[in-house]
Formats: sequence, structure tokens, C-alpha cells
Amino acid sequence: MSQYEDRQRKFQQAVENKLSAYIQEDKVLQSDVIDAMRYSLLDGGKRIRPMLTLAFCELCGGTEEQALPFACAVEMIHTYSLIHDDLPCMDNDTMRRGKPSNHVVFGEDTALLAGDGLLTMAFEAILQPDTVACCGAERAVRAAYILAREAGVYGMVGGQQIDLMSEGRQIPLETLRTMDEYKTGALISAACCMGCIAAGGSDEQVSAAREYALALGLAFQIIDDILDVTGDPEVLGKPVLSDQKSKKCTYVSLLGLDSARKLAASLTEKAVKALESFDGDSRFLKELAVKLGEREN
Amino acid sequence: MSQYEDRQRKFQQAVENKLSAYIQEDKVLQSDVIDAMRYSLLDGGKRIRPMLTLAFCELCGGTEEQALPFACAVEMIHTYSLIHDDLPCMDNDTMRRGKPSNHVVFGEDTALLAGDGLLTMAFEAILQPDTVACCGAERAVRAAYILAREAGVYGMVGGQQIDLMSEGRQIPLETLRTMDEYKTGALISAACCMGCIAAGGSDEQVSAAREYALALGLAFQIIDDILDVTGDPEVLGKPVLSDQKSKKCTYVSLLGLDSARKLAASLTEKAVKALESFDGDSRFLKELAVKLGEREN
Repeated sequence: MSQYEDRQRKFQQAVENKLSAYIQEDKVLQSDVIDAMRYSLLDGGKRIRPMLTLAFCELCGGTEEQALPFACAVEMIHTYSLIHDDLPCMDNDTMRRGKPSNHVVFGEDTALLAGDGLLTMAFEAILQPDTVACCGAERAVRAAYILAREAGVYGMVGGQQIDLMSEGRQIPLETLRTMDEYKTGALISAACCMGCIAAGGSDEQVSAAREYALALGLAFQIIDDILDVTGDPEVLGKPVLSDQKSKKCTYVSLLGLDSARKLAASLTEKAVKALESFDGDSRFLKELAVKLGEREN
Repeated sequence: MSQYEDRQRKFQQAVENKLSAYIQEDKVLQSDVIDAMRYSLLDGGKRIRPMLTLAFCELCGGTEEQALPFACAVEMIHTYSLIHDDLPCMDNDTMRRGKPSNHVVFGEDTALLAGDGLLTMAFEAILQPDTVACCGAERAVRAAYILAREAGVYGMVGGQQIDLMSEGRQIPLETLRTMDEYKTGALISAACCMGCIAAGGSDEQVSAAREYALALGLAFQIIDDILDVTGDPEVLGKPVLSDQKSKKCTYVSLLGLDSARKLAASLTEKAVKALESFDGDSRFLKELAVKLGEREN
């Protein structure tokens, strides 16, 4: 196993354990909504966002213990957004990560509440006395504020609204970029910045983490669009050319394949360059950016 | 105008102004979700929860400025819960406070996002630098934590789930009480406790505020049930005997009218008694409890 894979596994394991501890099975009157939250939160996602939080905390000289509640909070927000996104009134997706979507299993009403519960629990995790005792009130406030801002109407929720309004329409490149920066970049940015904050990193480090995150997030999205055109359906695990069929505006449709590839490469480079602001060992984060840039699924 | 009405108007005006400042109209790509949030947040609700926050802050010797962000945060949570509750997959209510429900005007997808946006903004309001500069990081953390806990699966969201699971079923009194304590009491409790916290109140004061809140919340619910049987539809502004028609378990159906009345009166008394823990002038909060106990709509 490479050093990268070794660290990845270590981060992921820490996140799985902590997430599972936050929402324990409970024989209470409202146990259905707790089961629904666990169903989506503990479903073996890749945990990219919480890994970023842990890696940036380590890079700034902090401990895993300091960053774990922040890392889990980001994953709770990500998970709630997937549950709400899959609902019939949004994308109406009946499958997620190879399993029936939350509302298919638990019903729309409980799925809606499970999303609300996870969104709320994210803040509970950051602000609860144990966390504050470990990282101090100042850092807890700063982290939770960034998370709220980046997840809100001028962040993730705003991006989802732009997505709703762009459906089936021709949109300019600028709108596509704003949408993706809000919809995907904002939460990745929160993940990275909160890692620095957990460790007591400087404002410059938080800014550099944000730069890394936004470049990474956008590169990720562009590569998604490229793979939809050039990918192998077997390797991707989903059908290709779906954007073309649904007449969706993408980086490929707006820029062409070549320019889209160049843009993704330059963004990966930008992400890697942002890591130069840190004195610590940034090899993991560098490799993560490069791997996302080269991925085939 | 009585002194009570005078204070009520002053509190309400402060809340309206601040709420409106939090979500300003904005000509951005996602302006629809911002409009949807404003539509429900600024619709002239009674503002009982934020008034409680302001009154408890004042009672503990704090200023309006310290409590206003907390007060607005509670109202944002209350409003998001109404938007999500009205959705077709929940209660499917097409009217709210005499206006079409959020999803009727903006569509289900935007209404869902408006709820998510308001829930997220509640934490942004408490944790943003302006608020923290005014009340300090310790109080902001404590207040936001209480709000998250009381709004979550062991609070409001949990109560809504119990409600879903009780629909059309005979439930024991204990379940009904737990449901109402979670569904209504928890957020009222957060409102009262956050007021004390804004002012730097003691743990004893926070506990007394919680006692007041839970008694008030339950009394409110019992009186709702009583009015559904004894009320005048003209004064109530809604049809009566709706619980009986839908075979809903209520305090009246489980206890009988007389015992329900006695329980409500003893809870109002309990709320008033909890105010004795405070040295300050608690007349407003006392009158609020008594008025809620005597209300006819």
C-alpha cells in the first residue's frame, strides 16, 4: 500500500468511527428519523471533504482530535444535501451510491426530516462542550460560521437554486462557474478552511486553503463533464453522454473538449501551487489534487 | 396602550427590522430562493419566540443589541420548520397565515431550499463576527449549541417525527407530552435560554428559563386542543372540532375537558412561579404566560 493510500485509509477510518458515534442507534419514539440519518451518513461515501479537513489540520500542526468534529460536520452537511437533492421535488433520484435513496426506503416525510436533522446536527457537533473544550470557543465559532456561510444561500444552497433555474437553458460560462463554485466549491472550501482553523492556522493559511479548495472543486466538476463524453461506462459505473442527452450546459459544451482539459489541468496546478503557502508536509494534499485530476471514474 | 402592549410592540419592531436586514433583496442568480425566504420570514408572524429571547435577556440585565441576533435565529428556525411542514410530502397545507404557502408561490423545490437556507442562516446570524464582537465567543457558542440541540432529532425534528408516526393512531398521554415537548417546547426553551445566555445569565437562570418555557409551551398546546372543542370559529379564524374529525389524540380526548383545563392552569402557574428565580422585573413574561393561558384564538 502506498503512503498516500495508507494515510487515506487512516483518515477515513477515523471519520467512520466518529460519525457512527455521533448518531447511535436509539430505541426512542423518533427512532425512524435516526435510522434514516444513519442510513445515508454511514453508507461508505469516499469522505473526500472530511479527509481535506483532517489533512489541512495536520498541515497546520494540529491534531486529529481537534479536527474530527469539524470534519464530521462537513460530511453531515454534504449528506443532508444529497438526501434533499434526491427527493421527488428536486432530482427525483431513486438510487444513490448503489442503494435505494433515503426517501425510497424511509418515505419522503422522514427523508426530509433526516436531512433537516443532519444539517442541524452538523452545528451541534462543532459547538458541543466536548469539542469546545478541545479547540476553544474562538475556533469553534470561526469554524461553525464558515460552515454556515458556505452551506447557505450565498454558498451551497444558492448554487442549488442556480442549478434549478438553469435547467434546460443555455447559460454562459460565467453562470456555470458561479453555480459550481457555490454548489460544490463552497463546501469543499469550508472543509479545507475548517481544518486550518481547528489547528489555529493563520488568516493567510485559511486563504491559501480556500484557493486550493476552489481550484480543486472546479477541476473536479470539469473532469466530471469530460468523463461524461470520453469515459468508459464500465469504469464510470454510469451511462455516458447523459449531459448531451439532457441538453445540459457543461464545460465541454461551452469550451470544447481540448480547452476544458486545459482548464482542468491549470486548475489542478493552481491547487498544488496554493499548498506552497504551508511549511508542513503537503504531499497528501498534492497527491489528492493530482489524483482527482487524473481520475477515470 | 397598556405597558404590556407597549413592550410587545417595541420587541416586535426590533425583531422585524433586524430580520429584514439579515435577508435583503438581492439581484443575484439565486434571487428566487432569497425571495422565498423573505416571503415566509417577513410575513407578520406574532414573533412570540424572539420576544421571549429579548425579554429574558432584559430580565437578566442584558441589552437588546446582545439578544437580537439570537432572537432572529430562533425565528428563522421556526419559519424553516413551517415551510418544510407545509410541503406536500408533510402536511400538504396550501395556506399559512392567510397567504398561500411558500411552495404554492415558489414551487416545492425552491421552498425546500428556502427552508434549508433559513435553517443554515440561523447559525450564521449567531456566529457572525458582528454578533461575536457584541456578546463574546463563549456566549455565541453556548447559544448556538442550545439552538442546534433543541432544533434537532432530540428536539423539534424528533417531535415532528413522533407526530408523523402517531398519525391516525391512539397514543398514550406520555407520548403526546413527549411529542409536544420536542415539537413545540424545545424551540421555545431555546428562545428563553438564549436570552439568558445573551446577557451572561447564570446556569440557575438558564434552568429557570427552561422551566418557564416548557410549562408555557405545553399549556399553549393544551389550550389549542381545548379551543378546538370550545372555541368560536369566527374568533379562532379556523374551523373547530377538526381534531375529532381527524380522530387525533389530544389532551381533551385523553383527559376530558375539565382535567385538560386544570392541567393548563397549573402549567401556567408553574411558568409564572419559575420567574421567581429572577431578581429583575418579570412582569412582561408573567403577563405573556397569563395571556396565553386565557387566549381565545
